Amino acid sequence: MLSQETAPEATGSATTAAAFLRLLRSRAVVRRYTDEPVADALLAELLDVMPTAPTAANKQAWAFVAVRDPYAVRCLRAFAPGMIGLPPLVVAACFDRDRAVREDSGSQDTGLLCVAMAVQNLLLAAHASGLGGCPVSSFSRTAVHRLLALPHHLEPVLLVPVGHPAAPVRPSARRDRDEVIHHDVWTSPTAASAGP
Amino acid sequence: MLSQETAPEATGSATTAAAFLRLLRSRAVVRRYTDEPVADALLAELLDVMPTAPTAANKQAWAFVAVRDPYAVRCLRAFAPGMIGLPPLVVAACFDRDRAVREDSGSQDTGLLCVAMAVQNLLLAAHASGLGGCPVSSFSRTAVHRLLALPHHLEPVLLVPVGHPAAPVRPSARRDRDEVIHHDVWTSPTAASAGP
Repeated sequence: MLSQETAPEATGSATTAAAFLRLLRSRAVVRRYTDEPVADALLAELLDVMPTAPTAANKQAWAFVAVRDPYAVRCLRAFAPGMIGLPPLVVAACFDRDRAVREDSGSQDTGLLCVAMAVQNLLLAAHASGLGGCPVSSFSRTAVHRLLALPHHLEPVLLVPVGHPAAPVRPSARRDRDEVIHHDVWTSPTAASAGP
Repeated sequence: MLSQETAPEATGSATTAAAFLRLLRSRAVVRRYTDEPVADALLAELLDVMPTAPTAANKQAWAFVAVRDPYAVRCLRAFAPGMIGLPPLVVAACFDRDRAVREDSGSQDTGLLCVAMAVQNLLLAAHASGLGGCPVSSFSRTAVHRLLALPHHLEPVLLVPVGHPAAPVRPSARRDRDEVIHHDVWTSPTAASAGP
Protein backbone atom coordinates (compact mmCIF):
# COMPACT_ATOMS: atom_id res chain seq x y z
CA MET A 1 0.00 0.00 0.00
CA LEU A 2 1.06 3.57 -0.58
CA SER A 3 2.29 5.38 2.45
CA GLN A 4 -0.32 7.90 3.55
CA GLU A 5 -0.25 11.18 5.41
CA THR A 6 -1.54 10.56 8.90
CA ALA A 7 -1.43 14.08 10.25
CA PRO A 8 -3.32 16.53 8.05
CA GLU A 9 -2.17 19.29 10.36
CA ALA A 10 -2.16 21.85 7.58
CA THR A 11 -5.95 21.91 7.21
CA GLY A 12 -8.20 24.32 9.00
CA SER A 13 -5.72 27.19 9.20
CA ALA A 14 -7.32 30.30 7.71
CA THR A 15 -4.12 31.31 5.91
CA THR A 16 -3.62 27.90 4.36
CA ALA A 17 -7.27 27.70 3.35
CA ALA A 18 -7.21 31.13 1.72
CA ALA A 19 -4.05 30.31 -0.25
CA PHE A 20 -5.49 26.96 -1.30
CA LEU A 21 -8.78 28.48 -2.47
CA ARG A 22 -6.82 31.08 -4.44
CA LEU A 23 -4.90 28.29 -6.16
CA LEU A 24 -8.12 26.43 -6.98
CA ARG A 25 -9.62 29.57 -8.54
CA SER A 26 -6.49 30.56 -10.47
CA ARG A 27 -5.96 27.23 -12.26
CA ALA A 28 -6.62 27.51 -15.97
CA VAL A 29 -6.20 25.39 -19.05
CA VAL A 30 -2.65 25.42 -20.51
CA ARG A 31 -2.41 24.20 -24.12
CA ARG A 32 1.08 25.36 -25.16
CA TYR A 33 4.32 24.51 -23.40
CA THR A 34 8.00 25.43 -23.36
CA ASP A 35 10.69 22.85 -24.15
CA GLU A 36 11.60 22.49 -20.47
CA PRO A 37 11.28 18.85 -19.40
CA VAL A 38 9.46 17.64 -16.28
CA ALA A 39 12.13 16.40 -13.87
CA ASP A 40 11.94 12.98 -12.18
CA ALA A 41 11.25 14.30 -8.67
CA LEU A 42 8.50 16.64 -9.85
CA LEU A 43 6.92 13.89 -11.96
CA ALA A 44 6.81 11.60 -8.93
CA GLU A 45 5.07 14.31 -6.90
CA LEU A 46 2.50 14.98 -9.63
CA LEU A 47 1.70 11.29 -10.05
CA ASP A 48 1.49 10.60 -6.31
CA VAL A 49 -1.57 12.83 -5.86
CA MET A 50 -3.64 11.04 -8.51
CA PRO A 51 -4.53 7.85 -6.57
CA THR A 52 -5.44 9.94 -3.50
CA ALA A 53 -8.66 11.04 -5.26
CA PRO A 54 -12.02 9.72 -4.04
CA THR A 55 -12.71 6.17 -5.13
CA ALA A 56 -16.22 4.69 -5.38
CA ALA A 57 -16.63 1.58 -3.19
CA ASN A 58 -12.84 1.75 -2.73
CA LYS A 59 -12.44 -0.03 -6.08
CA GLN A 60 -9.56 2.24 -7.19
CA ALA A 61 -10.62 1.39 -10.73
CA TRP A 62 -7.89 3.44 -12.39
CA ALA A 63 -4.46 3.22 -13.96
CA PHE A 64 -2.11 5.92 -15.19
CA VAL A 65 0.63 5.87 -17.80
CA ALA A 66 3.10 8.78 -17.67
CA VAL A 67 4.73 9.31 -21.07
CA ARG A 68 7.85 11.46 -21.33
CA ASP A 69 9.70 9.74 -24.18
CA PRO A 70 9.63 12.46 -26.90
CA TYR A 71 8.90 10.05 -29.73
CA ALA A 72 6.07 8.41 -27.74
CA VAL A 73 4.61 11.85 -26.94
CA ARG A 74 4.66 12.73 -30.66
CA CYS A 75 2.92 9.46 -31.49
CA LEU A 76 0.16 10.10 -28.93
CA ARG A 77 -0.30 13.64 -30.20
CA ALA A 78 -0.67 12.39 -33.78
CA PHE A 79 -3.83 10.54 -32.66
CA ALA A 80 -5.15 13.30 -30.39
CA PRO A 81 -6.59 16.27 -32.27
CA GLY A 82 -7.48 17.78 -28.89
CA MET A 83 -3.77 18.11 -28.01
CA ILE A 84 -2.52 21.47 -29.34
CA GLY A 85 1.04 22.16 -28.17
CA LEU A 86 3.84 19.60 -27.86
CA PRO A 87 4.14 18.80 -24.13
CA PRO A 88 7.14 17.26 -22.32
CA LEU A 89 4.74 14.92 -20.49
CA VAL A 90 1.42 13.23 -21.24
CA VAL A 91 -0.43 11.29 -18.57
CA ALA A 92 -2.97 8.80 -19.88
CA ALA A 93 -5.69 8.31 -17.27
CA CYS A 94 -7.45 4.97 -17.69
CA PHE A 95 -10.55 3.31 -16.27
CA ASP A 96 -10.07 -0.29 -15.11
CA ARG A 97 -13.17 -2.22 -16.27
CA ASP A 98 -12.19 -5.22 -14.15
CA ARG A 99 -12.74 -3.05 -11.08
CA ALA A 100 -16.03 -1.46 -12.17
CA VAL A 101 -18.50 -0.81 -9.36
CA ARG A 102 -21.37 -2.18 -11.44
CA GLU A 103 -20.17 -5.01 -13.64
CA ASP A 104 -22.84 -4.46 -16.29
CA SER A 105 -22.39 -0.71 -16.53
CA GLY A 106 -19.86 -0.49 -19.36
CA SER A 107 -18.25 2.91 -19.46
CA GLN A 108 -20.98 4.64 -17.40
CA ASP A 109 -19.52 3.34 -14.16
CA THR A 110 -19.06 5.71 -11.21
CA GLY A 111 -15.39 4.72 -11.34
CA LEU A 112 -15.11 6.91 -14.44
CA LEU A 113 -15.94 9.94 -12.31
CA CYS A 114 -13.15 8.95 -9.92
CA VAL A 115 -10.68 8.88 -12.83
CA ALA A 116 -11.77 12.46 -13.62
CA MET A 117 -11.20 13.49 -9.98
CA ALA A 118 -7.71 11.96 -10.08
CA VAL A 119 -7.00 14.02 -13.22
CA GLN A 120 -8.17 17.16 -11.44
CA ASN A 121 -5.71 16.39 -8.63
CA LEU A 122 -2.94 16.14 -11.26
CA LEU A 123 -3.93 19.45 -12.89
CA LEU A 124 -4.05 21.21 -9.52
CA ALA A 125 -0.69 19.80 -8.45
CA ALA A 126 0.80 20.91 -11.76
CA HIS A 127 -0.66 24.40 -11.32
CA ALA A 128 0.70 24.65 -7.77
CA SER A 129 4.13 23.68 -9.10
CA GLY A 130 4.11 26.35 -11.82
CA LEU A 131 3.15 23.95 -14.61
CA GLY A 132 -0.09 23.57 -16.48
CA GLY A 133 -2.10 21.08 -18.45
CA CYS A 134 -5.32 20.28 -20.19
CA PRO A 135 -7.61 17.25 -20.04
CA VAL A 136 -8.06 15.94 -23.59
CA SER A 137 -10.93 13.63 -24.51
CA SER A 138 -10.65 13.97 -28.27
CA PHE A 139 -8.30 11.12 -29.28
CA SER A 140 -8.39 7.72 -30.93
CA ARG A 141 -9.06 5.14 -28.19
CA THR A 142 -7.81 2.32 -30.42
CA ALA A 143 -4.55 4.05 -31.29
CA VAL A 144 -3.80 5.07 -27.71
CA HIS A 145 -4.63 1.57 -26.50
CA ARG A 146 -2.07 0.13 -28.93
CA LEU A 147 0.62 2.78 -28.46
CA LEU A 148 0.60 2.32 -24.67
CA ALA A 149 0.28 -1.49 -24.89
CA LEU A 150 -2.68 -1.32 -22.52
CA PRO A 151 -4.26 -4.59 -21.39
CA HIS A 152 -7.81 -5.19 -22.59
CA HIS A 153 -9.48 -4.16 -19.32
CA LEU A 154 -7.96 -0.66 -19.29
CA GLU A 155 -9.88 2.04 -21.15
CA PRO A 156 -8.08 5.36 -21.76
CA VAL A 157 -10.48 8.09 -20.60
CA LEU A 158 -8.43 11.29 -20.71
CA LEU A 159 -5.01 12.25 -22.05
CA VAL A 160 -3.43 15.01 -19.98
CA PRO A 161 -0.57 16.96 -21.57
CA VAL A 162 1.45 18.73 -18.86
CA GLY A 163 4.31 21.20 -19.15
CA HIS A 164 5.65 24.63 -18.33
CA PRO A 165 3.26 27.24 -19.76
CA ALA A 166 4.53 29.04 -22.87
CA ALA A 167 2.41 32.09 -21.93
CA PRO A 168 0.89 33.53 -18.74
CA VAL A 169 -1.99 31.49 -17.30
CA ARG A 170 -5.34 33.29 -17.45
CA PRO A 171 -8.58 31.71 -16.19
CA SER A 172 -11.32 32.07 -18.77
CA ALA A 173 -14.69 33.65 -18.01
CA ARG A 174 -17.42 31.50 -16.56
CA ARG A 175 -21.23 31.61 -16.73
CA ASP A 176 -22.99 33.82 -14.21
CA ARG A 177 -22.98 32.36 -10.72
CA ASP A 178 -26.79 32.65 -10.41
CA GLU A 179 -27.17 30.60 -13.58
CA VAL A 180 -25.32 27.56 -12.27
CA ILE A 181 -25.69 27.70 -8.47
CA HIS A 182 -29.06 27.55 -6.72
CA HIS A 183 -30.03 27.18 -3.07
CA ASP A 184 -32.24 24.51 -1.48
CA VAL A 185 -34.32 23.99 -4.63
CA TRP A 186 -33.74 24.87 -8.27
CA THR A 187 -36.58 27.40 -8.40
CA SER A 188 -35.61 29.14 -5.19
CA PRO A 189 -36.81 32.67 -4.33
CA THR A 190 -33.17 33.81 -4.36
CA ALA A 191 -32.73 32.58 -7.92
CA ALA A 192 -36.00 34.14 -9.05
CA SER A 193 -35.27 37.51 -7.47
CA ALA A 194 -31.82 37.61 -9.09
CA GLY A 195 -33.45 37.95 -12.53
CA PRO A 196 -33.94 41.26 -14.33
CA MET B 1 -19.64 36.47 -15.99
CA LEU B 2 -17.94 35.51 -12.76
CA SER B 3 -15.07 37.71 -11.77
CA GLN B 4 -11.84 35.79 -12.22
CA GLU B 5 -8.42 35.90 -10.60
CA THR B 6 -6.07 37.58 -13.03
CA ALA B 7 -2.82 37.24 -11.10
CA PRO B 8 -2.09 33.64 -10.07
CA GLU B 9 0.96 34.95 -8.24
CA ALA B 10 0.81 32.20 -5.65
CA THR B 11 1.80 29.41 -8.06
CA GLY B 12 5.33 28.27 -8.60
CA SER B 13 6.59 29.01 -5.08
CA ALA B 14 8.16 25.88 -3.62
CA THR B 15 6.63 26.46 -0.18
CA THR B 16 3.15 26.98 -1.56
CA ALA B 17 3.48 23.97 -3.84
CA ALA B 18 4.64 21.72 -1.00
CA ALA B 19 1.75 22.80 1.26
CA PHE B 20 -0.72 22.35 -1.57
CA LEU B 21 0.54 18.86 -2.42
CA ARG B 22 0.30 17.94 1.27
CA LEU B 23 -3.31 19.07 1.31
CA LEU B 24 -4.09 17.05 -1.82
CA ARG B 25 -2.58 13.92 -0.26
CA SER B 26 -4.21 14.36 3.15
CA ARG B 27 -7.82 14.71 1.90
CA ALA B 28 -9.92 11.74 2.89
CA VAL B 29 -13.54 10.74 2.81
CA VAL B 30 -15.64 12.13 5.70
CA ARG B 31 -18.96 10.36 6.26
CA ARG B 32 -20.00 11.60 9.73
CA TYR B 33 -20.41 15.21 10.77
CA THR B 34 -20.91 17.37 13.84
CA ASP B 35 -24.03 19.54 14.21
CA GLU B 36 -22.06 22.69 13.40
CA PRO B 37 -23.66 24.48 10.42
CA VAL B 38 -21.77 25.75 7.36
CA ALA B 39 -21.82 29.54 7.54
CA ASP B 40 -22.90 31.72 4.60
CA ALA B 41 -19.43 33.12 3.86
CA LEU B 42 -17.80 29.68 3.91
CA LEU B 43 -20.56 28.21 1.74
CA ALA B 44 -20.00 30.94 -0.84
CA GLU B 45 -16.26 30.16 -0.91
CA LEU B 46 -16.88 26.42 -1.30
CA LEU B 47 -19.36 26.91 -4.13
CA ASP B 48 -17.21 29.47 -5.97
CA VAL B 49 -14.47 26.95 -6.72
CA MET B 50 -16.78 24.46 -8.41
CA PRO B 51 -17.33 26.26 -11.74
CA THR B 52 -13.57 26.94 -12.03
CA ALA B 53 -13.01 23.26 -12.88
CA PRO B 54 -12.00 22.29 -16.42
CA THR B 55 -14.89 22.35 -18.86
CA ALA B 56 -14.92 20.38 -22.13
CA ALA B 57 -15.39 22.63 -25.17
CA ASN B 58 -16.16 25.42 -22.67
CA LYS B 59 -19.73 24.08 -22.44
CA GLN B 60 -19.89 24.46 -18.63
CA ALA B 61 -22.51 21.74 -18.73
CA TRP B 62 -23.12 21.77 -15.01
CA ALA B 63 -25.41 23.08 -12.31
CA PHE B 64 -25.21 22.89 -8.53
CA VAL B 65 -27.87 23.01 -5.84
CA ALA B 66 -26.63 23.70 -2.31
CA VAL B 67 -29.07 22.37 0.27
CA ARG B 68 -28.82 23.52 3.90
CA ASP B 69 -32.47 23.49 4.94
CA PRO B 70 -32.47 20.71 7.60
CA TYR B 71 -35.76 19.18 6.44
CA ALA B 72 -34.63 19.20 2.80
CA VAL B 73 -31.32 17.55 3.81
CA ARG B 74 -33.26 14.80 5.64
CA CYS B 75 -35.46 14.25 2.59
CA LEU B 76 -32.44 13.89 0.30
CA ARG B 77 -30.79 11.51 2.74
CA ALA B 78 -33.92 9.34 2.85
CA PHE B 79 -33.40 8.61 -0.86
CA ALA B 80 -29.61 8.26 -0.71
CA PRO B 81 -28.44 5.01 0.92
CA GLY B 82 -24.87 6.12 0.19
CA MET B 83 -25.23 9.03 2.62
CA ILE B 84 -24.29 7.83 6.12
CA GLY B 85 -24.17 10.72 8.59
CA LEU B 86 -26.53 13.70 8.69
CA PRO B 87 -24.64 16.63 7.13
CA PRO B 88 -25.40 20.35 7.56
CA LEU B 89 -24.96 20.78 3.77
CA VAL B 90 -25.54 18.68 0.68
CA VAL B 91 -24.44 19.88 -2.74
CA ALA B 92 -26.19 18.21 -5.66
CA ALA B 93 -23.89 18.29 -8.68
CA CYS B 94 -25.82 18.00 -11.94
CA PHE B 95 -24.98 17.47 -15.60
CA ASP B 96 -26.75 19.82 -18.03
CA ARG B 97 -27.84 17.68 -21.01
CA ASP B 98 -28.71 20.78 -23.03
CA ARG B 99 -25.02 21.67 -22.99
CA ALA B 100 -23.66 18.21 -23.81
CA VAL B 101 -20.54 18.18 -25.97
CA ARG B 102 -21.95 15.40 -28.15
CA GLU B 103 -25.69 15.77 -28.52
CA ASP B 104 -26.28 12.06 -29.08
CA SER B 105 -24.13 10.85 -26.22
CA GLY B 106 -26.67 10.62 -23.41
CA SER B 107 -24.96 10.40 -20.05
CA GLN B 108 -21.57 9.31 -21.42
CA ASP B 109 -20.71 12.88 -22.35
CA THR B 110 -17.29 14.30 -21.45
CA GLY B 111 -19.18 17.00 -19.58
CA LEU B 112 -19.92 14.37 -16.92
CA LEU B 113 -16.19 14.16 -16.19
CA CYS B 114 -16.13 17.94 -15.74
CA VAL B 115 -18.93 17.69 -13.16
CA ALA B 116 -16.74 15.19 -11.27
CA MET B 117 -13.76 17.59 -11.41
CA ALA B 118 -15.96 20.39 -10.03
CA VAL B 119 -16.94 18.07 -7.16
CA GLN B 120 -13.27 17.35 -6.48
CA ASN B 121 -12.66 21.12 -6.25
CA LEU B 122 -15.46 21.31 -3.67
CA LEU B 123 -14.06 18.42 -1.63
CA LEU B 124 -10.57 19.93 -1.65
CA ALA B 125 -11.85 23.38 -0.68
CA ALA B 126 -13.82 21.79 2.16
CA HIS B 127 -10.74 19.88 3.32
CA ALA B 128 -8.60 23.03 3.23
CA SER B 129 -11.24 24.78 5.35
CA GLY B 130 -11.28 22.04 7.98
CA LEU B 131 -14.47 20.41 6.69
CA GLY B 132 -14.95 17.15 4.87
CA GLY B 133 -17.30 15.40 2.52
CA CYS B 134 -17.99 12.40 0.41
CA PRO B 135 -19.19 12.03 -3.18
CA VAL B 136 -22.32 9.86 -3.17
CA SER B 137 -23.56 8.17 -6.34
CA SER B 138 -25.98 5.77 -4.66
CA PHE B 139 -29.30 7.65 -4.62
CA SER B 140 -32.66 7.70 -6.38
CA ARG B 141 -32.29 9.95 -9.45
CA THR B 142 -36.07 10.32 -9.72
CA ALA B 143 -36.55 11.32 -6.08
CA VAL B 144 -33.67 13.82 -6.11
CA HIS B 145 -34.93 15.29 -9.37
CA ARG B 146 -38.34 15.91 -7.78
CA LEU B 147 -37.10 17.08 -4.36
CA LEU B 148 -34.86 19.71 -5.94
CA ALA B 149 -37.45 20.70 -8.57
CA LEU B 150 -34.79 20.23 -11.26
CA PRO B 151 -35.71 21.06 -14.85
CA HIS B 152 -35.79 18.12 -17.26
CA HIS B 153 -32.37 18.80 -18.80
CA LEU B 154 -30.49 18.61 -15.46
CA GLU B 155 -29.35 15.15 -14.37
CA PRO B 156 -28.13 14.78 -10.77
CA VAL B 157 -24.75 12.99 -10.97
CA LEU B 158 -23.36 13.15 -7.44
CA LEU B 159 -24.71 14.22 -4.05
CA VAL B 160 -21.97 15.66 -1.86
CA PRO B 161 -22.65 15.84 1.87
CA VAL B 162 -20.28 18.33 3.52
CA GLY B 163 -19.74 19.16 7.17
CA HIS B 164 -17.32 19.40 10.06
CA PRO B 165 -15.79 15.94 10.64
CA ALA B 166 -17.09 14.10 13.70
CA ALA B 167 -13.76 12.24 13.98
CA PRO B 168 -10.16 12.82 12.84
CA VAL B 169 -9.64 12.55 9.09
CA ARG B 170 -7.48 9.60 8.05
CA PRO B 171 -6.65 8.84 4.40
CA SER B 172 -7.30 5.18 3.63
CA ALA B 173 -4.65 2.90 2.16
CA ARG B 174 -4.25 2.77 -1.59
CA ARG B 175 -3.10 0.09 -4.04
CA ASP B 176 0.64 -0.19 -4.62
CA ARG B 177 2.01 2.63 -6.73
CA ASP B 178 3.64 0.19 -9.21
CA GLU B 179 0.25 -1.43 -9.77
CA VAL B 180 -1.48 1.74 -10.96
CA ILE B 181 1.30 3.94 -12.37
CA HIS B 182 3.45 2.91 -15.33
CA HIS B 183 5.96 4.80 -17.44
CA ASP B 184 5.96 5.33 -21.22
CA VAL B 185 4.16 2.04 -21.94
CA TRP B 186 2.11 -0.28 -19.78
CA THR B 187 4.59 -3.15 -20.05
CA SER B 188 7.61 -1.01 -19.35
CA PRO B 189 10.94 -2.50 -18.19
CA THR B 190 10.55 -0.52 -14.93
CA ALA B 191 7.19 -2.07 -14.27
CA ALA B 192 8.45 -5.55 -15.11
CA SER B 193 11.51 -5.29 -12.90
CA ALA B 194 9.37 -4.09 -9.99
CA GLY B 195 7.73 -7.52 -9.78
CA PRO B 196 8.83 -10.25 -7.40
